[in-house]
Parts: sequence; C-alpha cells; structure tokens
Amino acid sequence: MVESTLLPDLATQVIVPLCAIVGIAFALVQWLLVSKVKVSTDKSHSNSKNGFAEPLIEEEDGVSEHAVIQKCAEIQTAISEGATSFLFTEYQYVGIFMVAFAILIFLFLGSVEGFSTAAKACTFDATKLCKPALASAIFSTVAFLLGAITSLISGFLGMKIATYANARTTLEARKGVGKAFIVAFRSGAVMGFLLAASGLLVLFIAINLFKLYFGDDWEGLFEAITGYGLGGSSMALFGRVAGGIYTKAADVGADLVGKVERNIPEDDPRNPAVIADNVGDNVGDIAGMGSDLFGSYAESSCAALVVASISSFGINHEFTAMLYPLLVSSVGILVCLLTTLFATDFFEVKAVKEIEPALKKQLIISTALMTLGVGLVSWIALPSSFTIFNFGSQKDVKSWQLFLCVCVGLWAGLIIGFVTEYYTSNAYSPVQDVADSCRTGAATNVIFGLALGYKSVIIPIFAIAVSIFVSFSFAAMYGIAVAALGMLSTIATGLAIDAYGPISDNAGGIAEMAGMSHKVRERTDALDAAGNTTAAIGKGFAIGSAALVSLALFGAFVSRAAISTVDVLTPKVFIGLLVGAMLPYWFSAMTMKSVGSAALKMVEEVRRQFNTIPGIMEGTAKPDYATCVKISTDASIKEMIPPGALVMLTPLIVGTLFGVETLSGVLAGSLVSGVQIAISASNTGGAWDNAKKYIEAGVSDHARSLGPKGSDAHKAAVIGDTVGDPLKDTSGPSLNILIKLMAVESLVFAPFFAAHGGLLFKLF
Amino acid sequence: MVESTLLPDLATQVIVPLCAIVGIAFALVQWLLVSKVKVSTDKSHSNSKNGFAEPLIEEEDGVSEHAVIQKCAEIQTAISEGATSFLFTEYQYVGIFMVAFAILIFLFLGSVEGFSTAAKACTFDATKLCKPALASAIFSTVAFLLGAITSLISGFLGMKIATYANARTTLEARKGVGKAFIVAFRSGAVMGFLLAASGLLVLFIAINLFKLYFGDDWEGLFEAITGYGLGGSSMALFGRVAGGIYTKAADVGADLVGKVERNIPEDDPRNPAVIADNVGDNVGDIAGMGSDLFGSYAESSCAALVVASISSFGINHEFTAMLYPLLVSSVGILVCLLTTLFATDFFEVKAVKEIEPALKKQLIISTALMTLGVGLVSWIALPSSFTIFNFGSQKDVKSWQLFLCVCVGLWAGLIIGFVTEYYTSNAYSPVQDVADSCRTGAATNVIFGLALGYKSVIIPIFAIAVSIFVSFSFAAMYGIAVAALGMLSTIATGLAIDAYGPISDNAGGIAEMAGMSHKVRERTDALDAAGNTTAAIGKGFAIGSAALVSLALFGAFVSRAAISTVDVLTPKVFIGLLVGAMLPYWFSAMTMKSVGSAALKMVEEVRRQFNTIPGIMEGTAKPDYATCVKISTDASIKEMIPPGALVMLTPLIVGTLFGVETLSGVLAGSLVSGVQIAISASNTGGAWDNAKKYIEAGVSDHARSLGPKGSDAHKAAVIGDTVGDPLKDTSGPSLNILIKLMAVESLVFAPFFAAHGGLLFKLF
Repeated sequence: MVESTLLPDLATQVIVPLCAIVGIAFALVQWLLVSKVKVSTDKSHSNSKNGFAEPLIEEEDGVSEHAVIQKCAEIQTAISEGATSFLFTEYQYVGIFMVAFAILIFLFLGSVEGFSTAAKACTFDATKLCKPALASAIFSTVAFLLGAITSLISGFLGMKIATYANARTTLEARKGVGKAFIVAFRSGAVMGFLLAASGLLVLFIAINLFKLYFGDDWEGLFEAITGYGLGGSSMALFGRVAGGIYTKAADVGADLVGKVERNIPEDDPRNPAVIADNVGDNVGDIAGMGSDLFGSYAESSCAALVVASISSFGINHEFTAMLYPLLVSSVGILVCLLTTLFATDFFEVKAVKEIEPALKKQLIISTALMTLGVGLVSWIALPSSFTIFNFGSQKDVKSWQLFLCVCVGLWAGLIIGFVTEYYTSNAYSPVQDVADSCRTGAATNVIFGLALGYKSVIIPIFAIAVSIFVSFSFAAMYGIAVAALGMLSTIATGLAIDAYGPISDNAGGIAEMAGMSHKVRERTDALDAAGNTTAAIGKGFAIGSAALVSLALFGAFVSRAAISTVDVLTPKVFIGLLVGAMLPYWFSAMTMKSVGSAALKMVEEVRRQFNTIPGIMEGTAKPDYATCVKISTDASIKEMIPPGALVMLTPLIVGTLFGVETLSGVLAGSLVSGVQIAISASNTGGAWDNAKKYIEAGVSDHARSLGPKGSDAHKAAVIGDTVGDPLKDTSGPSLNILIKLMAVESLVFAPFFAAHGGLLFKLF
Repeated sequence: MVESTLLPDLATQVIVPLCAIVGIAFALVQWLLVSKVKVSTDKSHSNSKNGFAEPLIEEEDGVSEHAVIQKCAEIQTAISEGATSFLFTEYQYVGIFMVAFAILIFLFLGSVEGFSTAAKACTFDATKLCKPALASAIFSTVAFLLGAITSLISGFLGMKIATYANARTTLEARKGVGKAFIVAFRSGAVMGFLLAASGLLVLFIAINLFKLYFGDDWEGLFEAITGYGLGGSSMALFGRVAGGIYTKAADVGADLVGKVERNIPEDDPRNPAVIADNVGDNVGDIAGMGSDLFGSYAESSCAALVVASISSFGINHEFTAMLYPLLVSSVGILVCLLTTLFATDFFEVKAVKEIEPALKKQLIISTALMTLGVGLVSWIALPSSFTIFNFGSQKDVKSWQLFLCVCVGLWAGLIIGFVTEYYTSNAYSPVQDVADSCRTGAATNVIFGLALGYKSVIIPIFAIAVSIFVSFSFAAMYGIAVAALGMLSTIATGLAIDAYGPISDNAGGIAEMAGMSHKVRERTDALDAAGNTTAAIGKGFAIGSAALVSLALFGAFVSRAAISTVDVLTPKVFIGLLVGAMLPYWFSAMTMKSVGSAALKMVEEVRRQFNTIPGIMEGTAKPDYATCVKISTDASIKEMIPPGALVMLTPLIVGTLFGVETLSGVLAGSLVSGVQIAISASNTGGAWDNAKKYIEAGVSDHARSLGPKGSDAHKAAVIGDTVGDPLKDTSGPSLNILIKLMAVESLVFAPFFAAHGGLLFKLF
C-alpha cells in the first residue's frame, strides 16, 4: 500500500510552472526598473535631466552632460556589439556541434537494440515492458537539444541585460554608490532569475510532453530526460572554456602592450583591446558562469530524477514525490525573490563599506530561508517513508533524511563560500601575507600564492566530504543529487551576486573611457572590489556544486550501466582512477597554453595598431576595436577545440574500448583530483588579484609600507596577478566542466557502453 | 605435488649474501680509487705533484699550487663538518622519534590479542597455529629499528663519500673534464652500491634470524619483516622532508641576500650562507634521495614478501621462490657493477659533450642487461607455475608472467626517465619555449612553466598505468610489487648517476670559492649541467617507483586487513578517496611554507653578518659559516614537524576512527593525486632551472637573443628558477614520502586496525 503525499499531484502540476513564471516575471520587472535609467541622449533632452526627476548629487566639472551620456552610449554600444558578435560567432560553431552531437547521440543510443522499434523488457524490472531503445534515442536527442537551446537563450539574455546595465550603472554612480549598486544588482538578478526559472520551466514542460509518449514507462522517460543535462552542460563547455580563453586573452593582451609597453592605464580608450577586454568580462563571467551553473542545475535535477525513476517513487508512479527536485527548485525561486528584496527594497546601501556586507547577507538570508523552504517541501511532497535505488538493491529512507540531505548541501555551499572569502579577500591575513611576501620579490609572491591555494582546499574538501557522507549514507546517490540541488537551490541569488561583479567592472571601465570624474571612478571601483570577492565566492560555489553534481551523475551512470561495485582492487578500475586523476592536469595544461597563444595574437594586433594608426596615442584617432574583438572571438573558439575534444572524446573512447569499469575509475579519478586543482587555482588567482589591490588601495599602515603603485613590491604583485589570471578565470573554472560533462556524457551513453563497451578487453 | 625450482635453496642462501658482499666490496674499491686523489697538502709535498705521478694538464696562473689545495681542503672540511653537524642534530630527533615510534608499534600490535603469549590460529589458514600477536609486535619493532638504522648508516656513509669527493673532483678538473667526471661518478657509485647492497644484506640476515624463531610460520615471519620497510621509509621522511627544507632554505636565503641585495655571484666565499648552501646539496640530493630510494626498495621487497608468504610460495615453504625479490635485487647489483665499468673503465669521457650521453648510456645499458638478468632469475628461481594470493582467492601464475611483471616496471622506469629528460633538458623544445616566454616577462614564464609541468605528467602516468595493468592482471598485488622492484633493480646505477650531480655542483662551488681559474669552473659547470638533467631523471624515477611501491603496499595492506573489495560506491570509501586526494595539497602547502619560513631566518642571519662583521664584503674578514649551517639545521628540523605529523598521524587517526575501508580510500586517493603533483612540481622546477641556464649559456642564436645574464628575459627566468626551487627540491619529492609512508604504516598497523579500527562508526 502506497502512502500518499500531502500535496496532491494536481497541485504539483500547478505549483512548479507557477513558481517558474513568477521567477520570469520578477526578472522582467527588474529589467523594467533598470531600463528607467536612460542612456540615450535624445530622450534626456525632452525629459528632465538624465531621465530622472531627481537631480544628480553632483555635477561633472568641465564635462558637458550631453557629451558624457553620448560617450557612455557609444561605449556601451561597442561592448554590446562585441559581445553579440562573439555570441553569434560562437553559435555557428555551437550549431555545428549540436547537430553533430545530436546525430551521435541518436546513433549510439539507437544502436543499442539495433534500431528496433519493438518494445523491450525494462532494465530494472524485467517483468514489465518498456518503450524501445529507439524511442530513448529519439527523446534523448530532443532533450539534449532542449537543454542546449535553453542554456543558449538564458546566456544570450543574461549577456544582453549585462551589457545593457553597465553604462546605466556608470551613470547612476554619479548620484551615489547606493543608486549604482541597485542598478548593478538588479541587472544581476535579471540574469539569475531568468536562468533559474526558464531552466525549471523547460524541464517541467519536457517531462510532461515526454510523458504523453512514455506513459507509465518512467524508467525510459527519465532516462531520456538526462539528455537535458547533457545539452545544458555541453553549452557550458563553450561558455566556460571559450569564454574563459576569450576574457583572459583580451585582458592579458591589453595589459601586456598597454600597461607594460605603452605605459597607459587600465581601461584607457586609446588601447585597441579595451573593448575586447570589457566584452571579455561579460563573456567569461556572465555567460560562462551562467552556463556552468545552469549545467549543474540541469544535471543534478536529471541525476535525481533518473535515480528516483527506479526507486519507489518511480515504481509506484508517485508524481509529486517524483518531482521533489523540481519542487525544491520552485521554492528556491520564491526564496531568492524574497532575498533580493532585502538588497534592493527593504534596506538601502548608503556607503561603500556597506556593499560587501549587503552581498554577504544575501547568501546568509537565502540559505536560512531556504532551510525552511526545504523543510516545507519535504513535509508536504514526500511520503514519510519510501525506498531509494542503491546500486542493485532498494534502501529504506525517511522524509526527514532527505530533508537533511538537501540541507547539508545547502549549508556546505555557504561554508565553502565563506572559506573562499577568507582566503581571497584582502581583509584577512592569508592575502595580506601574500602581499607581504612581495617585499622579497615576485618569486616569493608566487610561492606563497601557490601555497595559499593549496591550503585553501582543506576545509572545502572536508565540507564536501561531510555532505557526501551524510547524503550518501541516508539516501545513496539520490541523496547526493538532492544535496547538489540544495547547494544550487539558491542559484538565482548566487547568480545575481555573481553577475553583479562584471557589470560593476564594466561600469568602471566605461567611467574611465568616458573621461568621467575621479569620484565616479572611485565609486565604481568600490563596487568592483566587492564584486571581486563575490566572484571568488561564486567560483567556490560553482566548484563545490560541480563536485556533488558529478558524483551524482557518476552514481546515476553506474546504476544505469548496471555496475554494482567499482572496486579499486581491480586493475581495470585502478588504471582508470590513475589516468582520470591525470586528466585535469592535461586539460589545465591545454587551457593555460590556449590563453597564452590567444593573448599573443592579441598582442600582435594591438602592437600593429599602435604602430600603424597615426594619432592613436594622442587620442586624435580612434583605434580599430572591432578587429581586436574579432581576434579574441576567433582565437578563443579555435583554442577551445583541443581541450573540448579531450572532454568530449574521453568518455566515448574509454567506454567503447575499455568498458564501464575503467570509465567509472576515470570519472572518480578526475572528480577527486579535478576538484582540488579547481579550488586551488581559483583561490590562488583571487588571492593574487586582491593582494595587488591591497597594495594599491593602501588602506592600512601595512599596505602603505608595501606601496604605492609602481613600487618594487607592487610590481611583484602585478606579476602574481598576471599569473593568476588564467588560473582563476580559465583553467580553474573550466575544470568544473571537465568533471561534470564527462560524467553526464557517460550517463547518457551508458546504455550503449553497457551493451557494446570494452571492445579492447573483449578482443584479448 | 610441489614443483621444485632449478636453483636449490642452499644456493639461494649463498648467492644473495654473496652478491651483497660483492656490492659492498665494489663500493669500497671505488672509494679507494677516489681517495688516491690527495687533498691534504702535507702529502702532496713529499709525493709528486698533487699525489699523482702525471703532470697537471695546465697550471693555474698566478695562483700558488699550495694555496689552492690548502683552500680546497679548508672548504671541504667546512662542508663536511656542516653536513656531519646536520646529520648528528637530525639523529638526536631521529633517535627520539625511533624510540617513540618503536614503542607505539609494539603497543598497537601487541594489543591486537591483548598481549597474550598464546599461539593463535593463522589469519589466512585457520587450520594452522601461528605465533602469538605479541611475537609479531616484538619482531616488527625489531625489523623497524633494523630498517631505520640501515637507512641511517647508508645515508651517513653516502654523505661522507660525497663530501670527501667534492674537492677531489675540483682538483681533478684541473687535469681535464674526463678525470673529474670519473672521480665524481665513482663517488656516486660508492653511495649507490653501499645502499643497495647493505639494504639487501640486512634484509636477508633479518629474514634468516627471524626464521629461527618463527620456523614454519612464514605468515607471521614476513608480516613482522614489513617493519623493515616502515623503518627505512620513516627515515626517508627525515631525509627528504628535513633535507629538502634545509637545502632550499640555504639556497634561497643565500641567493636573496647575496645575489639580489649584495650583488655578489653564486658560491662567493664572502656570502655567509655559502657553506650551508653547499651542505644543502649533499643533505637534500644525496642523503634525501638515498633514503627515499632505500625506503622504496625496502618497502617493495617487503610488500612482495608479505604477499608471497600467503601465496603458494609461502604455503608450500618454497624458500628459493619466496626469496625471488631478493634474488632479483642480487642480480641487479651484479648488473649495475658491470654497467659502472662502462662509464669508468671500458670507455673514457674526453669532452664536455660526451658527459650527458655517457650518463644516459648507463641507464640504457643497465636496463638492457637487467632484462637478461631478470629472465635468468625467473627461469631458475621460480617454479613454472604457482599461485598468488589475490584478495581472498588464489590466482594461477606462470613464471614467464612474473618475468614480464618485473620487466614492465624496469622499462617503464626508463621511459619515465627519458620523458623527464625531454621536458627538463634545454636541448629540447619544451624548455626552450619556456625560455622564450621570458621575453614577455616573469608572469608568462611562470604560466608556461606550470603548463609544462602539467603536460609532462601525461606520458609517465600512461607508463605507470600500463605497468600497473600488466602486472596487476598477471599476478595481482605481487605483480605490482615485483614491477616496483624491477624499476628499482638498477638502483645502484640510478643512485650513482644521481649522487654524481650534487658532487659536481659542490665541486663547482669549491672551484669558485678557492678562486680557481675560469677554465676549471667551466668544466665543473659542464659536469653540473649534465647532473641537473640526471637529477631530474632520478626524481622521475623516484616518483614512478614510489607510485608502484605504494600501490603494492596498499595491496598488501588490503590483503592483511582482510578486505576483499574497496568499493568506490560506498560513502566510507568515497570520502576517503576525496580527502586522500586533498592530502598532497595540504602537505605541499606546509612544505612550501616551511621553506619560506626557514629561508627567512637565513636571510636575517646573512643580513646581520653583512651588517655587523666589518671587512666581510672586502674579503678581509671571514664570515661565520657555522651559524648559518646551524640555522638551516635547526629550522629544517623544526619545520618538518607539521608535515611529518600529517603523514604519520593520518593513517593512525583514519584507521582508528574510521576503519580500514576509509583508510583504503585515503591511500588510493593520495596515491593517484600525489603522483601527479609530484611529477609536475619536479618537472616544472627542473624546466625553469634549465631555461635559466639556457639563457645564461647562450649556445644558440635563439638563446643569445634572450640573454645575456642580467637582461630582462634573464631576470624573468631567475624568478621562475626561484619559484621552482622549493617545488622541485622540497614539496615535489617529499610527496613520494607521503604516499609511501602512509601506505607502509597502514600495512604495519593493519592487524590493529582490522581488530579495533573504525571506532567512530562503531559508536554510531
């Protein structure tokens, strides 16, 4: 006798899409509010000053109001066009990739039963008849395309709002730091809510549509749905890897010629690569981070669903319990909506020193509220007792245990966030020690920075280990998947905070390029500094969730491949583990080299423009920004092919030639090794960046003793910062994709590997 | 019916000690030959010039013969005294550690059966009676002390001969590069053969003595013998970690004040830290490397023996087959002896460019000859078919399969050596690319160097993976152990080549300090450059063997703890894997910081001396070398305590609190993660070092376009070199100890963990 849930199925069918629509509506409202700041000068003439009734807090001296807005509009257009041009170039490659990979999925999965259209016995319950493998192939392919397209659209809209908001933030900064903060934060929220809500909505619709065909065959239904995770995640490959290469190639290229050779400041409009650099912030940190987290979200939902479909939820066809992961995400959207109001409406940021606490409060509030939300969902949407598939057997689980699984992930995320902040913010001793080591030169700076990164791994790993232990012990791989979902349940807030950083960064760049006053630049710098720390927190978060997600996917893969143990004491598994642990190194070597090559191309172009365009250094001639944007775009997409191929081909080759046991080893090895490098690389880079900023800002006696800008210690700090750039923005975060994408790809192709894999061992 | 081996047991009892004694005798002969070069000036007066009948090839201009020899003798004495003083200080701590740990071993193992003196049923054959656990405890403790003392004595003698040979190499360099090469190489051989032969001899004697008590209880006998591996390996902790910190603290400290602040050249006698720096080469690269490889050798022998004792060899009491690992090592000594003659007697090095090929030929010749040797031993010392214990069952193995296991390890070692050479020698493109990246500054140099290190991991990992797969598939964990032994069978040659490096380095330092002519310095530099590459090869070798050894120990531990599967799909194992993969990062963070702190103390002392001793910069007053030596010594031993404690306590804490499954995960995780960091760290450091040397030497147009010394590119290269110092000489090689020592400690304490481990899980 099946115990029913408090929440009827019909209510679930209403609540999930409703929450998603509320999220989308909220995003649109935020967009509307941001759009009230006018950048176009035509309107500002007919209207009151700058489109706002209230007067500016201070006026620019000696700069005409009209000229400034005009300039901002121009720069914004250039950045927006550059970003759009990158995206559209990327989409051409993405399009080819999507079609090719969709065909590959169809062929591999279709071939499992030789493209037969006959119904077959179910994998986990041989007494029932399931839909043919061909149907799985078709629907998996459709789900893959849906996931990919949803990710693309969310990324595109996020980028649009970011490039729409940057100039508006600059203009608002003239009125005070609080106003600018609200514009930047609201724009981040648009990105966060759009992504979280549309990801949920499309997944919900897909499940309901697929159900029309699959009917009671939930095993086949949710197996096909995993394609959605693969689609989202493979777009993240383009977003994170190509985006990461783009942003750092432009940044390093602009700095090497501009700062070092020509001695002009950062964001100087005379630098031909300056627009590319600002585009890069959007491409890497907005589109890249967004697609990464979207991928994690889609994958953890799919991993949870596929395990649930072969647990009591799926066997007994309990729809509400089955959709527990989606219900958690739905409540997450409402919680984040409430949390956002704390930053924009309930309280007001008035001074520079209130920015960072306001952002940190977002994390704490959302986590605390979400704990209540998860409790509610677990109470009404789960039967008090049920069973979960556990590698061949069924495990008894209570609803409060599942509640704890979600919470442990949620709170582990917060701990990782705060540890990351401790190691990368210059308010604490680790970064100050690194800054201090600059006294004895760049070498000691690099050594101390690397050591800091290594050390920063310890607590996050323990936090992840505890989450894994608790959730694994309570509810096997389903527990891991919902722990990952717990960590990602506040994704809308996380993304809002994260997107806020590059928007502020861009705002500062625009202020510099538009020749605005020192005061405006100081305010945008303060916004940016807070954004640096939250960016590091966001990265820690992304890595932590990637680790849980890829473990959940690994578990789902193992279940689907019908392996009941992955024994380290077999040579097949052990060599997989060893080689898997090597892959992050190989991948990092590739991405680091890619940044180097792409940056070199940029350096040559910038040098060429400085040498051949007369009047460029005097500011009388305009540099050719578009060529630099094009070089970054082309180089980043070309350079992402080798690391991308490594990620995409490894599971296919290992699974086909060596079989599922070796592939399990590879996945486990790359997971446990990759997460360490990812955390240490991004924290090392963040620490170097902030050590440099610490010396530049000179807010304490200690900091002043190391500075000012241009001192030997500062030069050493700049070297560390440059080394850290590719580590924290390219190779480190890209590892998330490595570990997740290999796992989800293995999961999708599991039926094929289980049927035809291990050719090499079969031959000998 | 048990098939007997071609080689009778009596012959085995004769051959093994005979080979060991031949090895020791050969070492002594080499020592005698080296000692013919006279450093004392008293004798050289009564005798013909410089104690040799033949005249010097050229005379020093304007430097009196007497004064030069006098000076060399003085410097040699200072270095030798410094090294001895370090060793004796270390021995005080080692003594305390040895007594404390011996008591710990006795208590833990004795408590397994409550210190009962009654015979108990055997673990693997419950029908037989075995000696009481108390006997295991006593004999394990004795074996531990034997292993530790053998390692100490070998290390001490190696250091003595090295500090004895350095000045002699300098003096011979006046006659030509060939003469100097022979002295340096012979001295290295003394170290190599003493260590390999005494390790074998003591192990052989211990087995025979223990047998008097244990009789037919081979299970208990060889379990107790594993203490020998633990003893050898725990001394390596002191040698590698304290030695590594010592050498880099002195090096970095000397450079930071001498080269950077005072602008005096390397090895300038005015630098107070110069003697400590030269002592460091001996402490780190001779004693440290020696104890590391000795530990690997002892551990792989013990791992093989303990598995063999519960296989058909042990069950049927086949003594010759049982001692197969020792027979392989015996033949190895003879092979290395023959190989050495190729370098010193059959051929002669006449020109600088012949040095590196001569050293590389040593590796190839020894590997080729050893293949024949292994074939012979496998043919005469093994029954054609037998069974090997394989996690609970017995696996049928043929003698040719075991031959292949040894060979695959042997040849994998050679491949790793050559790949390491390719990535660290400046004759090939990887290092040249890194040098080229110095054009754009230190930051790109660091980025390219890190990427090179990551990339250099790929082929060695595949080589290790293939070795593991082949040997694991053929003969389970015994196969892995003999593959490790295969890699280490040419240890005498490997160590000779390795010890040659620091001796040449010291010789160069002495030439500089004694104010000898430019020509002499050029020759010692050429010797040293070849030594740099071989040092990198040696490190690759040490890491590769450490990986195999620790896997073999892991297998022996798992067998002994009676675990038949280590399933990644259980939370206990997975969190072990994740945390284990984190440990190398934690450990590296500690050792890198240790070098920094110790170097800082050295910097302060050197500065103090420069500021307070009048006439020191003019060369009229002698610096206080002894204080610097003392500071390095004290700091290195103090700083090794935290990383040492991490290594020693982790298995005890994890085993006691979380039990053997989690400990298995930790061991596997730290192995697969640590080996990658170790390889990449030491290759990155080696590449930076040689990139700097490439620019300095300026042998090609490309190199000259980057130089000369003092150019911006050279300055960038120096920064890379300094970053690489702790990576390649401290944190990287120390990881070998981490992965091996945790495994052997787990093995020794396995009976305790199996009986009483996992307290935390038992409580809940």
